[in-house]
Amino acid sequence: MTDLTPNLPEVVAEIRSLFERYEQALIDKDVEVLDATFWNSPHTIRYALHENGYGFDAIHAHRVARPPGPGIKEKRLRLEILTLGRDFATVNLEFKMRGRDVVGRQSQTFVRFPDLGWKVVSAHVSTMEGEKPW
Amino acid sequence: MTDLTPNLPEVVAEIRSLFERYEQALIDKDVEVLDATFWNSPHTIRYALHENGYGFDAIHAHRVARPPGPGIKEKRLRLEILTLGRDFATVNLEFKMRGRDVVGRQSQTFVRFPDLGWKVVSAHVSTMEGEKPW
Repeated sequence: MTDLTPNLPEVVAEIRSLFERYEQALIDKDVEVLDATFWNSPHTIRYALHENGYGFDAIHAHRVARPPGPGIKEKRLRLEILTLGRDFATVNLEFKMRGRDVVGRQSQTFVRFPDLGWKVVSAHVSTMEGEKPW
Repeated sequence: MTDLTPNLPEVVAEIRSLFERYEQALIDKDVEVLDATFWNSPHTIRYALHENGYGFDAIHAHRVARPPGPGIKEKRLRLEILTLGRDFATVNLEFKMRGRDVVGRQSQTFVRFPDLGWKVVSAHVSTMEGEKPW
């Protein structure tokens, strides 16, 4: 039976480290790290602000096409990491969009593959419509 | 070691059935089914179009507050179900927003709990900025 104990501290620490590495890679446009964070599979999906990436190759192409720069995140509002056992995790980040009076959200689903380690299999980045919390 | 075989047909069928039941419950505003689909936990997160729901109670409150009606989905554009082994799944739906020239996206992460069965632990609904595919 799969162990789904929530938020084992050492598992949360692993995911937090991968998440921070990914955020830094977005700022640096470090395509190698961005690619290494995601599952290299046609099943991987990343819904981004302006595009829907189906499969690792499409997601990689979006990485390469993106201009370098500090990106869309001006300020973190809330970061929630949930791990269940040692193989599943989600990371949800709410943030203020850079230079816009708009809330952004980023969701990632991580799975730990026996041969590959932790990989994002599904991700979704968006802006929230309507009311702002400030 | 956790089995992560992708898309075992019987597991995909289970998730498809839960997904369709959930979509119908959105149309019917069947709060009982909507609640039953999500993990009853303070860790559950649902980023919706206009609000960020942290924890089952907040998500439930949004369900109750929503007006009844056919909802935001006018037409499905692409539905992708990924299951990994027998305990883990993601569902990603791209759709046309009702009455708007805008793409919507819905992502759900399902985990099968030994005592509860399949539950959504994280969900994200949004509109895409910029270009449309039609």
